[in-house]
Amino acid sequence: MLLCDIGNTSYHFLSEYDDFKKDVKSFDASEIKHNVYYISVNKRVDASLNKLPNWIDISIQLDKTKYYETMGVDRMMALEAIEHGIIIDAGSAITVDVKKDGVFEGGFIYPGVKAMSETYKNISSALDYEFNFDVDLKKLPKNSQDAITYGYLKTLYCEVMSHKMDIILTGGDAKKFSKIFKAARVDEHLVFKGMKKLIPQL
Amino acid sequence: MLLCDIGNTSYHFLSEYDDFKKDVKSFDASEIKHNVYYISVNKRVDASLNKLPNWIDISIQLDKTKYYETMGVDRMMALEAIEHGIIIDAGSAITVDVKKDGVFEGGFIYPGVKAMSETYKNISSALDYEFNFDVDLKKLPKNSQDAITYGYLKTLYCEVMSHKMDIILTGGDAKKFSKIFKAARVDEHLVFKGMKKLIPQL
Repeated sequence: MLLCDIGNTSYHFLSEYDDFKKDVKSFDASEIKHNVYYISVNKRVDASLNKLPNWIDISIQLDKTKYYETMGVDRMMALEAIEHGIIIDAGSAITVDVKKDGVFEGGFIYPGVKAMSETYKNISSALDYEFNFDVDLKKLPKNSQDAITYGYLKTLYCEVMSHKMDIILTGGDAKKFSKIFKAARVDEHLVFKGMKKLIPQL
Repeated sequence: MLLCDIGNTSYHFLSEYDDFKKDVKSFDASEIKHNVYYISVNKRVDASLNKLPNWIDISIQLDKTKYYETMGVDRMMALEAIEHGIIIDAGSAITVDVKKDGVFEGGFIYPGVKAMSETYKNISSALDYEFNFDVDLKKLPKNSQDAITYGYLKTLYCEVMSHKMDIILTGGDAKKFSKIFKAARVDEHLVFKGMKKLIPQL
């Protein structure tokens, strides 16, 4: 069985054997002849998949009334996988969602690493630094690289920790962020776990 | 006497009578014949002002060893104006600086409103919303506009409030941010106050 989570930049597949990614710009979905259970937040890809009967949109199994109308189905699927906790999905955007005793409490959206790095660079060439994921967030910075790193990461850290809940990290940058959220559990297959729960025959 | 604080986008003047701004792209500094005491974080403007003897760079009066090498002189000047507190200077970037009992403790840099709004929009057209400065930051969001607003503002709010200090808001967006930092004192002339302290004959 093949699962696929389609985002703004890539198809993320999970087979029985491994997981792999394909670029949304170059990948041709009609190459795959097996059944694929998928979700997509990418409207353009979504439209093209409607014509392929072996691509099965599993998001129709979701009870979306538990969430909100414009919320990405990937966030919903990750939430389906847990009963209680705070999920950080670190991709091109970072979504942070809270679930308490089976109930979605709400969530927020923060820029991903690449987007935020561009933002600082565009404000001023004096702010064109890589983020330093080894920074000590307990100390107020006294250099430019740490000043933007702290601005990006400590603010997020402070908000997330204020909820005092177990943290689950997922998404392409999960490992990077586990340097900041040291007590977090990393689960790169969280969205797939939610999807599997909703496939009827499993 | 004329004071001028030059940033990435504008010349900000203060005379005895009022304060006013001029665009860095179109303003010709040689039009002004009076003495102007100025600071600048804009290298291009800085270079052109060196040739005008009535433009006097007041940043040379600063004891820069109290700060760090690549720090903007506007941040230093704002800090010169206070003895104790946390300064939020909300412009094209937002700088947050802490001073305790006369000593600079460090600071960080966060994107300004315009830059951050662009960032969300560039990640996905589904995130192309204005920030809602009337949002209730006590509640986790359940709609897209509040989800990006909370991502931008609550994270910053959480970090700033954790210092438990008096907050002074300055910069072009100070009034906007006073909706979020309700207990903050707004002082749009904070940088000028620091500059005045350093002009010898005053």
